[in-house]
Amino acid sequence: MKALEEKILREGKILPGNVLKVSHFLNHQLDVDFLMEMGREIARLFEGAGVNKILTIEASGIALAVAAAAHMHVPVLFAKKSASSNMSADKYTTEVASFTHNRVYRVVVSRDLLSADDRVLIIDDFLACGNAMIGLMDLVRQAGGEVVGVSAAIEKGYQGGGDKLRAENIRVESLAIIDEMTENGIRFR
Amino acid sequence: MKALEEKILREGKILPGNVLKVSHFLNHQLDVDFLMEMGREIARLFEGAGVNKILTIEASGIALAVAAAAHMHVPVLFAKKSASSNMSADKYTTEVASFTHNRVYRVVVSRDLLSADDRVLIIDDFLACGNAMIGLMDLVRQAGGEVVGVSAAIEKGYQGGGDKLRAENIRVESLAIIDEMTENGIRFR
Repeated sequence: MKALEEKILREGKILPGNVLKVSHFLNHQLDVDFLMEMGREIARLFEGAGVNKILTIEASGIALAVAAAAHMHVPVLFAKKSASSNMSADKYTTEVASFTHNRVYRVVVSRDLLSADDRVLIIDDFLACGNAMIGLMDLVRQAGGEVVGVSAAIEKGYQGGGDKLRAENIRVESLAIIDEMTENGIRFR
Repeated sequence: MKALEEKILREGKILPGNVLKVSHFLNHQLDVDFLMEMGREIARLFEGAGVNKILTIEASGIALAVAAAAHMHVPVLFAKKSASSNMSADKYTTEVASFTHNRVYRVVVSRDLLSADDRVLIIDDFLACGNAMIGLMDLVRQAGGEVVGVSAAIEKGYQGGGDKLRAENIRVESLAIIDEMTENGIRFR
């Protein structure tokens, strides 16, 4: 999505440690008019694919998931990060290793909200190593549902998560893919 | 908002301990078409009030804030819950006592995203004791901004937070106010 690439170049900042800061439009403050345009693009990409539910993970995936759902007219289910290690009979549970925060989260959804009837599009703001996406896919499969595809606003191509999923024949639609990021600039795929 | 009252009566469940379960349309799964209607109603209520930013708190406030912002064409800033007790020179920080989780959260926003120019509408999914709203108001005031009002989908009137704010001349617009909730049913204000 050309408009997103341009926005990243214009408004993003590269911080030491190869961190892309987009906190003033994507993951702390949200440029909602632009967010709705990204949601429209995701809806266009998955038109006719039979998606009947969007699954995301709190917190910063929720906004993009809502924007896509507003155009697709399907519900959003957001998985919750759980501090407790309690297993629960009424929840599907998986674990996600966070690269950014250097810890493992337990991630849960209620069993009554995900079923074998669901054809699920998984959405998150970032796709880097792919751990969150893999965890969410695991939840869908525990429920017997089908993963139609995954979509992210920004894929960090150089971290390999997206290509690992593509190699498993998962449909991956990222609105911008960064293949290289240095202090000299950003190269998109 | 009559449609929300009807939806609560039709789809909400009252659990032991006086907990209203609306997790299949408001705070775990999101009925996004209905969410956008709630956002439209908030936009209508605050039309002409000069709001230039919406502030909410992760995670379940984000969806309603995005829905309102999509109609108001203003950015959303979501405050983050921080596990660390580190004060930081580049963040405004406050503390919020959570009634539901029986703990105190440190809540932060980046200083560069909230300023004295901001006329802020604060949005959350629930308004109960009002602690989250008070914490978010504190962040706006630290930045020198103005709180135009607060809005929630569901106010638990019997917990008193909304009326406490009204008594301080804060404009409070809740889409549904529950004044009584027992195993026999719900009475709206």
